Amino acid sequence: MPSFTGDEYRTRIARTRQRMAEAGLDLLIVSDPANMNYLTGYDGWSFYTPQCVVVPGTGDDPLVIVRGMDRNGGLRTSFLPAARILGYPDHYVQARDLHPFDWIADELRRHGYGRGRVGTEQDAYYFSPAARAALERGLPEAAFVDANLLVNWVRAVKSEAELSYMEQAARIVEATMAAAYDAIAPGVRQCDAVAAIAAAQIRGTPEYGGDYAAFVPLIPTGIGTSTPHLTWTDAPFVSGEPTILELAGCRHRYHCPMARTLYLGRPPAKLRQTEAVVREGLQAALDAAMPGTTAEGVEAVWRRVAARGGVSKESRIGYSVGLNYPPDWGEHTISLRPGDTTILEPNMTLHLILGIWLDDWGLEISECFRVTDTGAQPFCDFPRGLHVKD
Amino acid sequence: MPSFTGDEYRTRIARTRQRMAEAGLDLLIVSDPANMNYLTGYDGWSFYTPQCVVVPGTGDDPLVIVRGMDRNGGLRTSFLPAARILGYPDHYVQARDLHPFDWIADELRRHGYGRGRVGTEQDAYYFSPAARAALERGLPEAAFVDANLLVNWVRAVKSEAELSYMEQAARIVEATMAAAYDAIAPGVRQCDAVAAIAAAQIRGTPEYGGDYAAFVPLIPTGIGTSTPHLTWTDAPFVSGEPTILELAGCRHRYHCPMARTLYLGRPPAKLRQTEAVVREGLQAALDAAMPGTTAEGVEAVWRRVAARGGVSKESRIGYSVGLNYPPDWGEHTISLRPGDTTILEPNMTLHLILGIWLDDWGLEISECFRVTDTGAQPFCDFPRGLHVKD
Repeated sequence: MPSFTGDEYRTRIARTRQRMAEAGLDLLIVSDPANMNYLTGYDGWSFYTPQCVVVPGTGDDPLVIVRGMDRNGGLRTSFLPAARILGYPDHYVQARDLHPFDWIADELRRHGYGRGRVGTEQDAYYFSPAARAALERGLPEAAFVDANLLVNWVRAVKSEAELSYMEQAARIVEATMAAAYDAIAPGVRQCDAVAAIAAAQIRGTPEYGGDYAAFVPLIPTGIGTSTPHLTWTDAPFVSGEPTILELAGCRHRYHCPMARTLYLGRPPAKLRQTEAVVREGLQAALDAAMPGTTAEGVEAVWRRVAARGGVSKESRIGYSVGLNYPPDWGEHTISLRPGDTTILEPNMTLHLILGIWLDDWGLEISECFRVTDTGAQPFCDFPRGLHVKD
Repeated sequence: MPSFTGDEYRTRIARTRQRMAEAGLDLLIVSDPANMNYLTGYDGWSFYTPQCVVVPGTGDDPLVIVRGMDRNGGLRTSFLPAARILGYPDHYVQARDLHPFDWIADELRRHGYGRGRVGTEQDAYYFSPAARAALERGLPEAAFVDANLLVNWVRAVKSEAELSYMEQAARIVEATMAAAYDAIAPGVRQCDAVAAIAAAQIRGTPEYGGDYAAFVPLIPTGIGTSTPHLTWTDAPFVSGEPTILELAGCRHRYHCPMARTLYLGRPPAKLRQTEAVVREGLQAALDAAMPGTTAEGVEAVWRRVAARGGVSKESRIGYSVGLNYPPDWGEHTISLRPGDTTILEPNMTLHLILGIWLDDWGLEISECFRVTDTGAQPFCDFPRGLHVKD
């Protein structure tokens, strides 16, 4: 049931322990569900209750700690032996005077993990200030250290097995974008188009079934394209308006996202002009991405093309991507923007996304790519241009 | 664009301020996206970056504070005037040495909100220990107080407008469960059945388009029914196995969930026996739910029926439900379990869910209901029994 071999998980744990040693950590408490999955295979929609993977610096296998009813899910999906999968009693869930991390702290003490330098993910989804406070109360002899993104950085360079899931996700998003182009037409309710899109994402291909993506389909339309994260309504699509499509294929929690823009009717000149600049800048940035380049260096190439074309964009133009859970398929490590001096390495994977949001319209075009030994290779093979349905 | 009238939002804010006064709060910082939506209408898949609604105890309207690119989304979806919607610069997003709550703290000081007793939601999704630490650093003259669930408790009793969205969601989940029964058959890939289910959820009815539910469709099958939160694979359904279906309809972020169990082939006697006990206990608990009863009192009625039938269940049998975002449609206030002495009131809405997960099989049956003046009224009208496809 785990998506990778035991050897691959053990390699990931070893790389994590190396970073723990560099940070002087005796114990790491991982709450980000993507990091939990990465280290153990654990997979389930159970992150709405507190849970974690605990990595001792040396010796013992990690522990997976979840709500009692989810322990069987841990047995089914993680590569670890049953003794390393613990479930806490249900009366700790959403209780007034108890927190699941009270139980977890007790259990850590019982395992002899109650002392030393303990890292927690201070800015991870699903790790709350209350969880952190419970750990501090329950482990008074521990010294807490911020280990945010420690595992995320281990994830930045992908293995061949991970890349093959992203390739499969690319086939899924190509089919999904084609389904979106088919579904959107004047008079069609937005919800009906998204129904077709979501079905295509989850159906996948005959060879590869689709997993749920970490974002729902984002399809702002009309004036909604002035901002990227509105979701659909049941209003109909209207002729003479653009629609942005930001979608992903997902396979075993690995994403390949893609953004495109569709226009119903004849696109106005300003949209065509912006499209031309964005396409030129996207290609120039892709051409610049290669091992040894910095993240900010890739962005600078876009920025020059954009300035020449009269387009300005305050926000970053891309980020590392791969394994994740809602609410984000980004990995929170690399950002393509000024000041990010991360040096690109082979098998890093990024989503280069050029989103332009003006007062009453917008446009997005993107490519998800892998850094190769000599350059950058997009995962998808799908026309980039504005898709016009006249 | 907001889903309710300005008057309804102002009533909600007034009720929140009353609870703030009782708790001695000068300011409330709300990060739970459901609470942000409840107080202002703000709606968007933007909760993957830090954001909040700030409620002064008296006087000024609340502030909505989101990432810069999402400010136009705030203008489109909240009932507040443009001056009360702020966007932070993009270089604060997922940065190494900056946090969006650094900017937010500065802005709060600039608005004169930097002193007094400030409540934060210490156990809300999407409010991290790093966010809390940034607030403490940036507002040294404030005294921080835990205001977790303060707004959730305001949400517990629904308005007529909210109830009508839940009624619409009920029509959607009835159609969705029927689609699931149609789609699941021996040899069908799980992902293909979920594609049909997700499409039905989002398509909704001809009158009411569907919104995204806060859980993806949960359809554990075979031995997967021994645990509730596994998601689908691309393996086929197999004859001689049960499948649990936990689904919801969603309308303007209001949920009506429903769980049922399906069996391919002839169900074994032990499953039929458990089904009979669960159905009897479910009806008995529904009959017991009425204004003046306690949450634990409803559970006790179930427990007596279950014990007589030889069924035991450690976990709670239900929770308050309504407005929410991923990862949970529950409201985290009322739990139907021993020790929860909340007294039921008219127009509270709960999901009564009897999930039995044994070593190698399981079963779930549920009803989402509203407390009426005299009893409990399920939102759905859908057969409860094991659905057998032989």
